[in-house]
Amino acid sequence: MRNYSSLVEHFKKINHFSHLMSICHWDQATMMPSGGSKARSQAIADLSLFIHQLSTDKTLIDKFNDAEQEALDKEQQASLKEMKRDWLLSTTLPESLVKEKSLAANHCEHHWREQRQQNDWQGFCSNFSHVVELSQQEAKIRAEKLGGSPYEALLDIYEPGMSCKNLDALFADLTSWLPDLMQQVQEKQAHHSFISPQGPYPISQQEKLGRVIMKQLGFDFNHGRLDVSAHPFCGGVSTDVRITTRYNENDFVGSLLGIIHETGHACYEQGLPCHLSELPVGHARSMGVHESQSLFFEMQLGRSTAFIKQISPLLALHFPNNDQKIFHPSNLQKLYRQVKPGLIRVDADELTYPFHVILRYEIERDLINKKISYQDIPALWDEKMHCYLGLNTQGNFKDGCMQDIHWSDGSFGYFPSYTLGAMYAAQLMAAMRKTVDVDSCLSQFELAPIRLWLSEHIWSKARLFSTDELIKQATGETLNPVYFKRHLEQRYLK
Amino acid sequence: MRNYSSLVEHFKKINHFSHLMSICHWDQATMMPSGGSKARSQAIADLSLFIHQLSTDKTLIDKFNDAEQEALDKEQQASLKEMKRDWLLSTTLPESLVKEKSLAANHCEHHWREQRQQNDWQGFCSNFSHVVELSQQEAKIRAEKLGGSPYEALLDIYEPGMSCKNLDALFADLTSWLPDLMQQVQEKQAHHSFISPQGPYPISQQEKLGRVIMKQLGFDFNHGRLDVSAHPFCGGVSTDVRITTRYNENDFVGSLLGIIHETGHACYEQGLPCHLSELPVGHARSMGVHESQSLFFEMQLGRSTAFIKQISPLLALHFPNNDQKIFHPSNLQKLYRQVKPGLIRVDADELTYPFHVILRYEIERDLINKKISYQDIPALWDEKMHCYLGLNTQGNFKDGCMQDIHWSDGSFGYFPSYTLGAMYAAQLMAAMRKTVDVDSCLSQFELAPIRLWLSEHIWSKARLFSTDELIKQATGETLNPVYFKRHLEQRYLK
Repeated sequence: MRNYSSLVEHFKKINHFSHLMSICHWDQATMMPSGGSKARSQAIADLSLFIHQLSTDKTLIDKFNDAEQEALDKEQQASLKEMKRDWLLSTTLPESLVKEKSLAANHCEHHWREQRQQNDWQGFCSNFSHVVELSQQEAKIRAEKLGGSPYEALLDIYEPGMSCKNLDALFADLTSWLPDLMQQVQEKQAHHSFISPQGPYPISQQEKLGRVIMKQLGFDFNHGRLDVSAHPFCGGVSTDVRITTRYNENDFVGSLLGIIHETGHACYEQGLPCHLSELPVGHARSMGVHESQSLFFEMQLGRSTAFIKQISPLLALHFPNNDQKIFHPSNLQKLYRQVKPGLIRVDADELTYPFHVILRYEIERDLINKKISYQDIPALWDEKMHCYLGLNTQGNFKDGCMQDIHWSDGSFGYFPSYTLGAMYAAQLMAAMRKTVDVDSCLSQFELAPIRLWLSEHIWSKARLFSTDELIKQATGETLNPVYFKRHLEQRYLK
Repeated sequence: MRNYSSLVEHFKKINHFSHLMSICHWDQATMMPSGGSKARSQAIADLSLFIHQLSTDKTLIDKFNDAEQEALDKEQQASLKEMKRDWLLSTTLPESLVKEKSLAANHCEHHWREQRQQNDWQGFCSNFSHVVELSQQEAKIRAEKLGGSPYEALLDIYEPGMSCKNLDALFADLTSWLPDLMQQVQEKQAHHSFISPQGPYPISQQEKLGRVIMKQLGFDFNHGRLDVSAHPFCGGVSTDVRITTRYNENDFVGSLLGIIHETGHACYEQGLPCHLSELPVGHARSMGVHESQSLFFEMQLGRSTAFIKQISPLLALHFPNNDQKIFHPSNLQKLYRQVKPGLIRVDADELTYPFHVILRYEIERDLINKKISYQDIPALWDEKMHCYLGLNTQGNFKDGCMQDIHWSDGSFGYFPSYTLGAMYAAQLMAAMRKTVDVDSCLSQFELAPIRLWLSEHIWSKARLFSTDELIKQATGETLNPVYFKRHLEQRYLK
């Protein structure tokens, strides 16, 4: 086990420097005054370079080969596999391409912020074309090592083991029933009336309520924090998970559901196995599985009838001076479950969200596989928005193909994770219900049995199994969209 | 300039990693939940080791030698000198001693926290003896390279260029007039009556007031923050200075003066020359000079009659529900200037503080020079407390020789900086008054001319000159205790 042990030491070291990176990134987003930015960027650049050097250490290949011959138990075998996966991900690309893409992506993303505001697609393209070209190069090189199509090689970074064939089938399934369902729900909701939030809801009270709910959900404040940032995220490290939110004084809904969403991410991180926390095998399985936990908390728990009943009196308690009718469970339920096609992905509801993802998936897949050019994107976007959501985005790049940060910074292959997460979450809930009386737990605001189930089946397993194995062990089958369908029908048609 | 440039690149890299270290230390003291501590310590240990490796890089010696032959301007010459100084400080000790002392000091300090509470001198000695022994070894090795006595070699870490001969003379001067002055002031104050703070003073209001005063003093919130920690400090980096305080709901005085003190440290950091910020020559000159800035703000400005007049209405404004008589300038002045010998250094007033330092200096000097043993400390402490402050500490180790963290963690040679700082501050104020109408500035709460003077004479000069040169350029002469004497007489006898 000499080689395995030596690899463990090496990856622990990478973990230690990545730990510092996470904390400094969190600090940048939440604490750092803007004047500190320039010097911090320089410090972070040196740290990135150092982590990159550790991650691509050429001497590791021999250790991997030799360690594979050593007598390892199952956990160690899985650990070795994940160390090797991380190492391959880091070393596949020539250093020159890594640097060039990083520079091009930073540059493009930086200008995108301004260009998006100005609806400036042409200006954006002058940088974006380079990002696309480099991403295509990256995908090609990765695909040569990994097998499969170029796009699949990028997808694999976020969703190890997922293929386009698989994804196409899953999305075809969704597309076969979701439009009808959307139609029916919209017709049903046309007769709904509800009262919208009337601010101000004092931010200090929103924060207090957020913390109360985080505690109820089992967030461990001895190993984490809640703070404010422009874009909510879950960061830090598994022993010290830092989630953030943003508050709108005139609406409590966004920050509350946002906190519940990030708490799902955080509980996954906090629930990862301690003894493996410094090794790749001890980290979260995939982006899709991570998203399954945040969406389990937000969609499966947070927007459930039983949970809303618990939230209602807490809202009344924290906002005694606001209109109390808004906090009535039946009103909250309508507020939380409006279905309406819209232009913006991050504002989308549970039903329309998958189309935002499918549309992006289809475009980025064809772009990376060189079936289309970046110049084709606006027309395709418009066509697909018409087809899936019946909306016109012609000439509106700002709220169309320029709305997300992902493409601007070269993160092609990430979008499918969102909808995979939503489907996993529904399937996990269906499986959980076989042994846990979820509604009774929620109606007593007693989350322990729910957390125990998630911990046993997902959190404690980290990267010890492939995603397919993980989901099969937890639910008895690999990903099946029928659970997502049933969940939506149950919630929106009953 | 090839060698000089290469050294610059190397020291910038050290600076970048030290930057991350500062931010992570600040995070540990202000933000990190306690459950995050173990993993953080491991990450920090790897970062420390890496910085140590960079700081002791053996290839630098040739570059230093070669760079000394290169055509450098004055600033580059000073820069080279300070890089070499830092490198020598890091490389003088054998790695084994650095490690052993670090472990012994951490261990001793860790247990000291408990042992101090329990007044357990014997228990403390079981660890402390080792720290003393290793510090003596360290001092001996440093002295062999540096010349001078072993204690001076430690003193030099904090106060480059300061000798015991010099320090003995300065402290002998203080000792010749301070006891009489103390006596006179106490007699004068015996007839004083004043009203003590009556809490609660809401912490949110104390914080608000603190920020108002920081702004008035010129703290740049675009390059810094104010937070809370158990022990107040000034940390972060010069482009992002993080100061902390602690609040007592029943007394506003401590946190307010604490904030003013740390703001002095912060303004020095924020005022260091930007173009040198990544190099040793761009850092603060010495601990004594750093303390001169915090004490300039706290003692010379903060406790002045003119400043107190400005604070008075602000206190009334921020605490409208408390007894307003407390905030009357004449009452505040008495509150801020009570002179009373006490056992605890950190609670001491301006007049008695130097004796706390002199006592420690005399003991640690003789300990490091092996004139006394660590077992002699309690008796010496008691004898000197009697002699200097007329107080009995027999058997009271807790409030006697065990009260400070410094010795427990092996920081011998640090204490003199506090009193050097107080003397520098008085001398700087006397010099400033020659060209700046300080009282008129303060009575208009217009700090710009005062800040400009400090910036020109101290902040912008960083480590470009020796401390003696710096003080001479600023005030026309090297350190002269007469200004401290005049300041105290003026403030406490008039």
